[in-house]
Amino acid sequence: MGAADRAEFARFGIEPGWGFAIRHRVRWSECDPFGHANHRAYFEWFEEARNRYLEDVGLPALSATTPGPVMAETGIRYYRPLAYGNEVLITARTVRLGRTSFEMEYAVWRQGLFAQGRAVLILVVNASGEKTPLPEALRRAMLARDPEAREAGISEKRTSG
Amino acid sequence: MGAADRAEFARFGIEPGWGFAIRHRVRWSECDPFGHANHRAYFEWFEEARNRYLEDVGLPALSATTPGPVMAETGIRYYRPLAYGNEVLITARTVRLGRTSFEMEYAVWRQGLFAQGRAVLILVVNASGEKTPLPEALRRAMLARDPEAREAGISEKRTSG
Amino acid sequence: MGAADRAEFARFGIEPGWGFAIRHRVRWSECDPFGHANHRAYFEWFEEARNRYLEDVGLPALSATTPGPVMAETGIRYYRPLAYGNEVLITARTVRLGRTSFEMEYAVWRQGLFAQGRAVLILVVNASGEKTPLPEALRRAMLARDPEAREAGISEKRTSG
Amino acid sequence: MGAADRAEFARFGIEPGWGFAIRHRVRWSECDPFGHANHRAYFEWFEEARNRYLEDVGLPALSATTPGPVMAETGIRYYRPLAYGNEVLITARTVRLGRTSFEMEYAVWRQGLFAQGRAVLILVVNASGEKTPLPEALRRAMLARDPEAREAGISEKRTSG
Repeated sequence: MGAADRAEFARFGIEPGWGFAIRHRVRWSECDPFGHANHRAYFEWFEEARNRYLEDVGLPALSATTPGPVMAETGIRYYRPLAYGNEVLITARTVRLGRTSFEMEYAVWRQGLFAQGRAVLILVVNASGEKTPLPEALRRAMLARDPEAREAGISEKRTSG
Repeated sequence: MGAADRAEFARFGIEPGWGFAIRHRVRWSECDPFGHANHRAYFEWFEEARNRYLEDVGLPALSATTPGPVMAETGIRYYRPLAYGNEVLITARTVRLGRTSFEMEYAVWRQGLFAQGRAVLILVVNASGEKTPLPEALRRAMLARDPEAREAGISEKRTSG
Repeated sequence: MGAADRAEFARFGIEPGWGFAIRHRVRWSECDPFGHANHRAYFEWFEEARNRYLEDVGLPALSATTPGPVMAETGIRYYRPLAYGNEVLITARTVRLGRTSFEMEYAVWRQGLFAQGRAVLILVVNASGEKTPLPEALRRAMLARDPEAREAGISEKRTSG
Repeated sequence: MGAADRAEFARFGIEPGWGFAIRHRVRWSECDPFGHANHRAYFEWFEEARNRYLEDVGLPALSATTPGPVMAETGIRYYRPLAYGNEVLITARTVRLGRTSFEMEYAVWRQGLFAQGRAVLILVVNASGEKTPLPEALRRAMLARDPEAREAGISEKRTSG
């Protein structure tokens, strides 16, 4: 998976409002006996897109001693199935910034939209389990990349994984 | 994973309103560098609980030529993290029955609720891609098991994996 | 996956020489578009059988600060394919005990042998990366369970995962 | 994962004798609580390298009705661990060509060799389960790419996955 360039955005039918994307080709190991990319595979693509996006806006590399995103909730809607070998772009954007949490959206594109998802993440120092306010530099970098993200509290639940 | 019995329901703190559960012990392969069961693992547990539940209410075994459930949307909320070796129960229930689709809820229990999810599934003959009305016997068996499920149309989107 | 009892050994056609087994039912998520359990799924079954076996012979639960098994090499031979829903037993046994490493074999049984594998594992304290001699109690418990295991040095390579 | 170019071969310390490689960056989802890429992840990298290699030498895209490679045996040796975010190259080459089967080797490179594996694959029409002789064009393309591959019978066992 590598970052996609602007020429590819048009080719895959990505709608306005998305600024970050990675490439993926559906792997054999991701497909089920119906011949479709399994519904769980998409969450791995979203995770990879999220990690690349967060690096891009300056969140320190994932480790047990620095604050890292921990998932509070996630969801997805599937529009059209994908098969082995299909080339897709996966987009990611921040839509809300809370004090210690943020909300992102993700989408899978081929000839237009194939699936769309979202996740609420909490910034946690894993070693202690403590929630951590989003660093100001991270907040600014996210808003620079996704100017339409709202700064608003999110009801923040305890979380896992 | 095997079906759980009633004595275990109390021991894991399962609340009223759930009638079907399978057992699971968190595997090493499901845990990430934070030491938590990865957020994607839960969707596999839900899938296994769903398949066992559907067998239990009489849906023919999954195959490419008989109608099978195809996922239209799914989501989850995580309340407390799980670690390697944790024993859990995963519950499944039907909450809505449409014409060709149905909605289920899932939950993960240890000392009470650890995570809760839902999914909308459409019954599709995979070989043709055609939506299929829920067989009357399946509908009756689901209502017998989960009497509080509503019979109501669900806006039914095209779907995948 | 739970430990299998002796009555099941005969039913699944397990040959003499194996004393430990866990049960598994092939999951939908483990099957590929050919309808077979994917070749990688077997390694997860072996890992789960290994972890249960090691608990059974007294190796402290896996953690970053106590010695844990780290894989140096592994391999498998597939004899007959498995499909969704197939019930299998997975056996595990120790065949060689070195100073800081040990060698195990695994097998998948249904109507007789379906696949057979092996692995060489090194006992390592993960936090430091140091090899650790097998505790005498572990060695004795392994030999008690698998009396035919040889005590012999294994050429011990550096390892990962 | 995309095909690697020759400049990268030197940078990752790839030894002579390998002509095909794909890129990979270790994903968060591939890492275990020890912080290492899980031993099973490598087999997915090998599978992806194999599928790309086979496309490159002209094997028709994987499907249930055309001949596809089915795994008879595989193995791996791990030399050095990998962590989240590590960039690697995965090489693939054919080392033996039988009548209906072939043997490949794979390796993972970072600063030199990190792991090495092999697999014996049988060409099978999945719908019928029949072994199929390697097409002459495939054989020639493999030998053109890997001139040192031996043409020799392999004892061919029944297989899965």
